[in-house]
Amino acid sequence: MRNLLDILDLNREELQRLIETASDMKEFPGKYSHTCEGKILATLFFEPSTRTRMSFESAMLSLGGGVISMADAVSSSSAKKGESVIDTARVISCYADIIAIRHFKEGAALAAADKGTVPVINAGDGGHGHPTQTLADLMTIYSEKGRMDNLTIGIAGDLKYGRTVHSLISALSLFDGIRLVLISPEELALPPYIIDTVITPNHMDYIESRSLEEHIGELDAIYMTRIQQERFDDPSAYERLKDSFILDRSLMESAKDDCIVMHPLPRVNEIAPEVDEDKRACYFRQVANGRFMRMALIKMLLEEAEKNPAEKVIGLASRAVRMPEAEAGKHRCANERCVTFTEPSTEPIFVTDDGEHYRCAYCDKALAL
Amino acid sequence: MRNLLDILDLNREELQRLIETASDMKEFPGKYSHTCEGKILATLFFEPSTRTRMSFESAMLSLGGGVISMADAVSSSSAKKGESVIDTARVISCYADIIAIRHFKEGAALAAADKGTVPVINAGDGGHGHPTQTLADLMTIYSEKGRMDNLTIGIAGDLKYGRTVHSLISALSLFDGIRLVLISPEELALPPYIIDTVITPNHMDYIESRSLEEHIGELDAIYMTRIQQERFDDPSAYERLKDSFILDRSLMESAKDDCIVMHPLPRVNEIAPEVDEDKRACYFRQVANGRFMRMALIKMLLEEAEKNPAEKVIGLASRAVRMPEAEAGKHRCANERCVTFTEPSTEPIFVTDDGEHYRCAYCDKALAL
Amino acid sequence: MRNLLDILDLNREELQRLIETASDMKEFPGKYSHTCEGKILATLFFEPSTRTRMSFESAMLSLGGGVISMADAVSSSSAKKGESVIDTARVISCYADIIAIRHFKEGAALAAADKGTVPVINAGDGGHGHPTQTLADLMTIYSEKGRMDNLTIGIAGDLKYGRTVHSLISALSLFDGIRLVLISPEELALPPYIIDTVITPNHMDYIESRSLEEHIGELDAIYMTRIQQERFDDPSAYERLKDSFILDRSLMESAKDDCIVMHPLPRVNEIAPEVDEDKRACYFRQVANGRFMRMALIKMLLEEAEKNPAEKVIGLASRAVRMPEAEAGKHRCANERCVTFTEPSTEPIFVTDDGEHYRCAYCDKALAL
Repeated sequence: MRNLLDILDLNREELQRLIETASDMKEFPGKYSHTCEGKILATLFFEPSTRTRMSFESAMLSLGGGVISMADAVSSSSAKKGESVIDTARVISCYADIIAIRHFKEGAALAAADKGTVPVINAGDGGHGHPTQTLADLMTIYSEKGRMDNLTIGIAGDLKYGRTVHSLISALSLFDGIRLVLISPEELALPPYIIDTVITPNHMDYIESRSLEEHIGELDAIYMTRIQQERFDDPSAYERLKDSFILDRSLMESAKDDCIVMHPLPRVNEIAPEVDEDKRACYFRQVANGRFMRMALIKMLLEEAEKNPAEKVIGLASRAVRMPEAEAGKHRCANERCVTFTEPSTEPIFVTDDGEHYRCAYCDKALAL
Repeated sequence: MRNLLDILDLNREELQRLIETASDMKEFPGKYSHTCEGKILATLFFEPSTRTRMSFESAMLSLGGGVISMADAVSSSSAKKGESVIDTARVISCYADIIAIRHFKEGAALAAADKGTVPVINAGDGGHGHPTQTLADLMTIYSEKGRMDNLTIGIAGDLKYGRTVHSLISALSLFDGIRLVLISPEELALPPYIIDTVITPNHMDYIESRSLEEHIGELDAIYMTRIQQERFDDPSAYERLKDSFILDRSLMESAKDDCIVMHPLPRVNEIAPEVDEDKRACYFRQVANGRFMRMALIKMLLEEAEKNPAEKVIGLASRAVRMPEAEAGKHRCANERCVTFTEPSTEPIFVTDDGEHYRCAYCDKALAL
Repeated sequence: MRNLLDILDLNREELQRLIETASDMKEFPGKYSHTCEGKILATLFFEPSTRTRMSFESAMLSLGGGVISMADAVSSSSAKKGESVIDTARVISCYADIIAIRHFKEGAALAAADKGTVPVINAGDGGHGHPTQTLADLMTIYSEKGRMDNLTIGIAGDLKYGRTVHSLISALSLFDGIRLVLISPEELALPPYIIDTVITPNHMDYIESRSLEEHIGELDAIYMTRIQQERFDDPSAYERLKDSFILDRSLMESAKDDCIVMHPLPRVNEIAPEVDEDKRACYFRQVANGRFMRMALIKMLLEEAEKNPAEKVIGLASRAVRMPEAEAGKHRCANERCVTFTEPSTEPIFVTDDGEHYRCAYCDKALAL
């Protein structure tokens, strides 16, 4: 049994295979309309995200499965009665064959996977990750550009809090010849730990910039993101930054003829509606791709769960070495956005890539030893 | 591909055909249990309306289709992040084969239909229209009275804000020999524009009255409505008017033996519970009819979308002439309840019935030229 | 047609049969995957309870049926517009083949069953009852202990407001040789009326205690319950009582080797997470059993409704004698938590077990004559 908690739980070959399955589902939907018959997906959303939830639910219905849903798990559920994420996951494991969970705490999906007894998909955990959005992004790049290697990709907007950005950069690290152009206001720049743990070790080519105009002409793809009001404590900072980059028709004139425009949506002002009619704008096709990738993912995880119901692989096991349990029990993660910080019953797990530096497996923050 | 945005998107023959299909579905439900297999309905409710939403969802399930739902789209969706109705419609078009939308803004369903890529059903747009309730009303009149023509129909309660009333009067204008008895407090009288644009041009016979007692004896049907608290800015006005008309057992003694009692529900005090046992009370049968009419409608729209996926007919095209786009771009609708007022990315559309006077296609308000 | 409003609507043989069906469903789920095809369950939750709702929905989907849902009926439904529970039930009867209702008012499920036209399952009505939780409890006792008779069962925590406790004691009264150990703080002791109407007339053996430690060694099963914050008006009382009993590893050392630990969940602090790994902890198996019992119940009620669509048995009819309607109309229940108190259109119903003392059929409170 496997989960999808982080985009790097999948390797390059698996990503490629998911894209192929999803493309086949797009072309021949009828072939898959009974694939998950008798199976149930639970969508547990502790943070509202209608489009992601509906994408999952539509995916499962299109595979012939059923759906049970907590659309607003924070206010209407056992959470109010003080229940932990872990208990919720164990209970919902009795009702569903697979769980898609969104939570405001970093690492919540891992906590659910660790104690639940069915496959868990991370549908967004705080500012940490959002791997199924990345699946949509990758399928879009592949289907629009015909390749995943040797691309110059601009990412503009909120690179600090944008979890879709963090997941995308991780995924791109698996491919060759990627050049990143990271465009943001200074306050919303990519966090240094991502440069240190993802970009540098993978020898990815990148530059940081404050200007979209300056670089638009070099790009094979521009990934626009929304400045997320809900991540700001200070409203005036949001007001000052929210319109930092606006992609409009005149800016698109400087872009290459085959530069695709992506966006995880929803957008506010950062892409002018006039761009929608541009054939290079592919954010609505990206939405459709997201649904097909979720179909392919659900199919894959359910098949693996059927093959190996007992053996549980929490994805990270494949890429990092775990600190022995007895030793791990002596430490706690100091990140207050981490699920282990507020839910003391979660088991502390720390992992290392180099045998020396450890990070929290839930939120990826470094552990100070 | 067609939508149902306004009850007049359907002509008399189409209404008749829908009633026949719905009646067949009522009698032989088993015949239709696989009609929409593999299809998905999305219910997008930006304003709560549990009964309407559940009626649509029950209808789709009974046709063998699947349902995805935004039960409380305002608070739990991308709307909070600032997304426009148009973007929501385009995104949901990637997840569903047909959309039923309720929205607090007039014309929101048209905005969704204009940019979405699947058929859209208006499940209520502000005070503007609510055509599927009217479908329920028409099937009820037909099945209870055996005809649609030559009827004296009383409508009592809130004729000002009651969108079900406005849609019903529009629909009745298609039939012959209808006499309307419009009963309301002065403050809640039928808006003059409906008299000017619907009743007068169609030569409908009508009287306005402040008394239910006075007219109950003449009626073939009495359509009671709730005074809608949520439409009042001033609570004292609501308190004064809420119990204007109460239909009770003693009043029913003055009614004809075959005078049917209708209500779009929910009711508060306007029909006493004691009337429920009267065989002329048919508001619960009306609820059941609504579900069958929604089944018939979903079937019809999905079949038409399959036949003509490309060609998009926004219903009004059939009955009014559109102002050329270049000219329309110079005007904006001045109605602040209109979706075009708050969502600047909606395309301005104006139409004319007489080649001279234009109205906003979204909210039907006259355009001052 | 029958309903499940109170656990005593079922007799010992019916409970036994439900457990057998549920056990078969657990072992051979494939056999039942089309049992309810074409049928629709409506879940109407006027009080949030995600786990109970999802258990019902998962049950119905596993039987091949469809689900429509009001997850938050209080805030998003016609309730806001002032609709009565009775009207809601009549309307939803037009959309669904069976209804599971949770409501904050005692007796709401009976009100729904009395006027609705499809079978109604009580999924919790205020502090009154919660019979399907009891079905889960009984299946768990039977499957873990191999019998239902001759057991010493401890019940600890909130025995005053805990409706699952009240329902469980009622159900256990049907079996022989049950000894109850009732453990609670004084303020949360079992209400005297349950002792008077259930325990004493059925000659059940019981003791009341303030200490879990003292009795843990005697028990065949310990049923832990949460102190329910939402039932307290005074926060300080909650704070004082919430950690009255905590079952942890050291306490489990005093328990018998085959003493099972049950909990209706969600838990807060009353069972330490370390107990989860103890093989005697069966609260998560209890969750799974709840789903299978709900499957068995839905199957049974739909089959009976098909056989006897017209004749309506509100369960209590089988065990108590009803006061004549004319006489009942002269009285009102004085319990302000009773649905008849706030919804004057509910029909007053009083019943007697001994021909002398009457109680309200909705909330079971004694009627002062």
